[in-house]
Amino acid sequence: MKCKSAVLWVLMSFVITGSSQAQKVISIHSPDNALQLNISQLATGKTTYSLSYKGAAVIQPSGLGFVLSKPAVTLSRFSISGVDSSTFNETWQPVWGEVSHINNHYKQLVVSLTDKAGSKIAVNIVFRLFNDGLGFRYEFPKQEGLNYFVVADELTQFAMAGDHKAFWIPGDYDSNEYAYNTTKLSEVNALAAAAKEKDIAVTSLIGANAVQTPLMMKTAKGIYINLHEAALVNYPAMNLVLNKSNLSFQSQLVPDAVGNKAYLQTPAITPWRTIVVSDKATDILASKLILNLNEPSVVPDSSWIKPQKFVGMWWEMHVGKATWQKDGGKHGANTQNVMHYIDFAAKYGFDGVLVEGWDVGWEDWFGNWKEDVFDFVTPYPDYDIDALTAYAKQKGVKIIMHHETSGAVTNYERWMDTAYRYMVLHNMNTVKTGYVGKIIPRGEHHDGQWMVNHFVRVAAKTATYGIMLDAHESVHPTGLQRTYPNWMANEAARGSEFNNAPTIGMTPEHTTILPFTRLMGGPMDFTPGLFHMQLNQFDSSRKQRVRSTLCKQMALYVTMYSPLQMAADLPENYNKYLDAFQFIVDVPVDWDDTKVLEAEPGDYITIARKAKNKNNWFIGAITDENSRQLQLPLSFLNAGGSYEATIYRDADNADWQTNPEAYTIEKIMVTNSTVLQVKLAKGGGCAISIFKKN
Amino acid sequence: MKCKSAVLWVLMSFVITGSSQAQKVISIHSPDNALQLNISQLATGKTTYSLSYKGAAVIQPSGLGFVLSKPAVTLSRFSISGVDSSTFNETWQPVWGEVSHINNHYKQLVVSLTDKAGSKIAVNIVFRLFNDGLGFRYEFPKQEGLNYFVVADELTQFAMAGDHKAFWIPGDYDSNEYAYNTTKLSEVNALAAAAKEKDIAVTSLIGANAVQTPLMMKTAKGIYINLHEAALVNYPAMNLVLNKSNLSFQSQLVPDAVGNKAYLQTPAITPWRTIVVSDKATDILASKLILNLNEPSVVPDSSWIKPQKFVGMWWEMHVGKATWQKDGGKHGANTQNVMHYIDFAAKYGFDGVLVEGWDVGWEDWFGNWKEDVFDFVTPYPDYDIDALTAYAKQKGVKIIMHHETSGAVTNYERWMDTAYRYMVLHNMNTVKTGYVGKIIPRGEHHDGQWMVNHFVRVAAKTATYGIMLDAHESVHPTGLQRTYPNWMANEAARGSEFNNAPTIGMTPEHTTILPFTRLMGGPMDFTPGLFHMQLNQFDSSRKQRVRSTLCKQMALYVTMYSPLQMAADLPENYNKYLDAFQFIVDVPVDWDDTKVLEAEPGDYITIARKAKNKNNWFIGAITDENSRQLQLPLSFLNAGGSYEATIYRDADNADWQTNPEAYTIEKIMVTNSTVLQVKLAKGGGCAISIFKKN
Repeated sequence: MKCKSAVLWVLMSFVITGSSQAQKVISIHSPDNALQLNISQLATGKTTYSLSYKGAAVIQPSGLGFVLSKPAVTLSRFSISGVDSSTFNETWQPVWGEVSHINNHYKQLVVSLTDKAGSKIAVNIVFRLFNDGLGFRYEFPKQEGLNYFVVADELTQFAMAGDHKAFWIPGDYDSNEYAYNTTKLSEVNALAAAAKEKDIAVTSLIGANAVQTPLMMKTAKGIYINLHEAALVNYPAMNLVLNKSNLSFQSQLVPDAVGNKAYLQTPAITPWRTIVVSDKATDILASKLILNLNEPSVVPDSSWIKPQKFVGMWWEMHVGKATWQKDGGKHGANTQNVMHYIDFAAKYGFDGVLVEGWDVGWEDWFGNWKEDVFDFVTPYPDYDIDALTAYAKQKGVKIIMHHETSGAVTNYERWMDTAYRYMVLHNMNTVKTGYVGKIIPRGEHHDGQWMVNHFVRVAAKTATYGIMLDAHESVHPTGLQRTYPNWMANEAARGSEFNNAPTIGMTPEHTTILPFTRLMGGPMDFTPGLFHMQLNQFDSSRKQRVRSTLCKQMALYVTMYSPLQMAADLPENYNKYLDAFQFIVDVPVDWDDTKVLEAEPGDYITIARKAKNKNNWFIGAITDENSRQLQLPLSFLNAGGSYEATIYRDADNADWQTNPEAYTIEKIMVTNSTVLQVKLAKGGGCAISIFKKN
Repeated sequence: MKCKSAVLWVLMSFVITGSSQAQKVISIHSPDNALQLNISQLATGKTTYSLSYKGAAVIQPSGLGFVLSKPAVTLSRFSISGVDSSTFNETWQPVWGEVSHINNHYKQLVVSLTDKAGSKIAVNIVFRLFNDGLGFRYEFPKQEGLNYFVVADELTQFAMAGDHKAFWIPGDYDSNEYAYNTTKLSEVNALAAAAKEKDIAVTSLIGANAVQTPLMMKTAKGIYINLHEAALVNYPAMNLVLNKSNLSFQSQLVPDAVGNKAYLQTPAITPWRTIVVSDKATDILASKLILNLNEPSVVPDSSWIKPQKFVGMWWEMHVGKATWQKDGGKHGANTQNVMHYIDFAAKYGFDGVLVEGWDVGWEDWFGNWKEDVFDFVTPYPDYDIDALTAYAKQKGVKIIMHHETSGAVTNYERWMDTAYRYMVLHNMNTVKTGYVGKIIPRGEHHDGQWMVNHFVRVAAKTATYGIMLDAHESVHPTGLQRTYPNWMANEAARGSEFNNAPTIGMTPEHTTILPFTRLMGGPMDFTPGLFHMQLNQFDSSRKQRVRSTLCKQMALYVTMYSPLQMAADLPENYNKYLDAFQFIVDVPVDWDDTKVLEAEPGDYITIARKAKNKNNWFIGAITDENSRQLQLPLSFLNAGGSYEATIYRDADNADWQTNPEAYTIEKIMVTNSTVLQVKLAKGGGCAISIFKKN
């Protein structure tokens, strides 16, 4: 429901200081009045926005505008040609997600600007002020003087009000798989951080002061600020470059092969720039601001889109048991092996079996900027796809297709229709895509406009084939799962596979940061559930290991929401711990409700979620390298209900370094007045299932 | 038939001057001994080739080699690890062409080289010495030390032995639609020449001394030399950069978006570098060297590939009668108009009707580097494709599909399969493609490796759909019509449409140069047959005009061979001159034999051709801006045969400037002893059909 202000100047809570004076200011407040947005304009035409939260500055006055290369004009000094305000309040239901209903409530301010420098170009800036933050985007309306145009730079700034603690990864045009750094803003050094990384396939660093979004910060006064973007379509991804002299970020868009940023045609819109703000870290995780800023689903019938859990032929390649390629005698994706996975999935009620390494091309797939590697329809001779299609169907399991493009996207685009028809023919309805390698078209980056359009194109096209999508090495997600609910998950961050990376690997705190950063944009196919922590099972020379307890691995199924969740370890490793594995068997991937009980980025997260259409709850609690005593009131349970809680907790002597796989399982009856006391080991966690009994 | 030398050192006519000396020389001769190839190697390892014709230097000692960027190594000093020679002599039959049988006779010399600088990279250079010239290419065999590699530069040189007269167009990565310049080599100034051009959509000039191939030259002593390449596959096109200090050309490959030239994997081969040589200009035009250096057809069944003549909805857009786009009230491709073309084609026995402007997108197609312009399957609402499909079928005519990509090749590649299926569904089997605009992938050029691969991909894919291909704005042809006989023709030069270009237009000599340059690589869809020379029929403000007589327009059907020939003018213009039009109706597009009777680049060409499987001959004679007296012995006719010749000649008072459409038609009986005397007007020509009568 949208309320248009009938009498604009009255209903809007803004103030314009007389236009003959040096500065005009327009102000609006969030529905709960905690946030105040000011738009200011100097007599020169320089226009800034600023944001405060409960009276404290969140964004100092920050510039807005563009440099265009065609026409060659800088849009940074404007006259205000109109101001429009409205309020909006509706509740909508996602196809799947953390909650069944989402409230979308904001005050909107549209400031219509005209370039003062002479081009007469009109640009509107649309601000939406929610209780949990601000979103704003630029709109270039259809206008006589501007049809096609090329963006050379976006001048949007985010001026911080202090030297905040920041959780950041290096700015990069091609990869977001870095380990997180926690420093003050003044101490950001992206090049030094990146220099320590040895295990990322393709990187294109921007500079020492460049970081990526979602960027999580915490002020000295305990205000949490998250910067990101929403609805990234037909535009490059945004990185942020910090000016350390004034602690102001400026947007740095990913360039294309010739150095341009975006090719647009009026009417054109940019993605939303988002600032999620709260004095409670838990509110940051609970925010639906980014989803609210995306468009509703464009998939006409979404009944076929089903959250799912899966196992698969994947981790055994990482740990050296098998290989993707056929040659060498250890080919994983052979018919017999995959049948075993299908058996395991069927036995424990998993929906899918991912099979990597099934198709010809792996023998020579990486690192040569080669265009025609895979054709996506030719199985290796030891992979009997027809037999496996029949076997999976008989067992009630779906095989999940894997399309590794090796970055040769022109090739993938040529094959996409053929490949998706092949999937439908073989009864598959989920594809995991991969983009490991330098992009072809050569000179393009993973996160540039061309690739952003590609990712959206894949989401749209898979939808027409009834296929769910899980994109790896993709651009950072920006809430587009609302618009394309078949686009279930992405990687786009350092996932669990980095437990096996020799250099930095995955620190215990990593998963306490991800929900505050990468996951702000959407679900991640993190592939949790590793039960065997020493990774030398098949190769005694391997030193790398999982820096987690077994219970923390289970807790991740709750703390890191995704509608696609893999049980990533090998069946034989699960078979050793079947009583613990039961939690993974039980945990849902779609929810009616979510309670972020406690959270601190870099330290800990505890979340409770209510299973979709059931009265069962699941709790995940994780900690970083420090042990932690949980005190957990179950007050979110229905009053008067009786519930059986199964508590999968770190054993008393568990420790991610010395005793990671030790756990204790306790079953107790609980009510909404129960307060659970649980100790999390160093690098540990706790998973709890709570089933309604009456 | 390939004869391998049993005793290498005896059968080969080469000499190696003792390896301990300063220079080794290996020599071979052409089968007729007129050409001598020398391969020389200094003690430093620098290896050169040189070529002489009847004792006169054609190519002075010229360098060979590469700069690779991956691995970073310069390959210019070699040791010879092997020499192999053989002879080859076979006769093959093209699917279509100027002659029914082609003799492929050469001596081959394979020089196996190893990098002396330490990389140990092995490269073979294969020389094939024909009676009409030399072809050579580099081969990188499969080898331990080299798998994937990247070419930064090819160091092949062509050192000229004098300051020859040259027929050249400016070196360019994107366009070959320039007017030809005739200067001495020392006077080449590509930038000055290009600065005069205003009517080419997209250009990327290389520099003042850069020219394109095919490059035609004539020495002071009357030797004709043509430089080009054959079998351009998976490699960028070659331009030539002249070092004016020594009159030596060096190859300049077209770069990709990041400045690399070619991405290759061993075993790899380059295109053939070709040098066609003769002291008779007519031999240059008759040469089949480039075809012989291409691979045989890979289209398994070529019975569906048929040379054809067509009319179409095209010139009326150029002269302002109609528009491509729907809006504006002059949309050419409406159902009624196209039916008239079908009627006209059916009446006069044309095979096809080209229809441009049929599909949605033209309203906004050019100049904005826009990716998603056309979808190749959506007709304008006033184009009833189903009705026209039925009407064409009933009339026994095929509609020729038009796929303008506007340079957005990524978009075309996504649609290709769908678009070709759509063609098959609508009973079409010929497509004219167009690439007007800057290429997408952005940063790529029309003539780079990526686009070369695209053009070949289109040829291969159309073949699988039974579709014949006519590519406009393509890379220069290199004889690939032998390998893909469905790839009938290309534009890739200044075609007849430039008669309508305001600035330079098309000079009378242009068509006397094209067969010596652009057509060396393959047929051109030049679109001759303009009968109305003043182009202000529909727009009285137009000053441009056709610089040709009407008879010359007819002669072009013989002098410029193509298996796809358009009668480009409007039906109403042909209806005014139906007696002359009869020649276009009669002239075939496939031939048993061809006699190049006389030729001089820039001045005149006279060719006689024998119709496929018939005893009819057709003669075309054209001249430049000078009038000319033809003396034409018909000695190629069968002895004793009686023939009726219809001579379409310029009227006595015809002149391209003052009286271009004046012609005279004479019918006489001739025999092989007849000598015809015909005057060609300034800018004129003569077309003659000779039908066997008994």
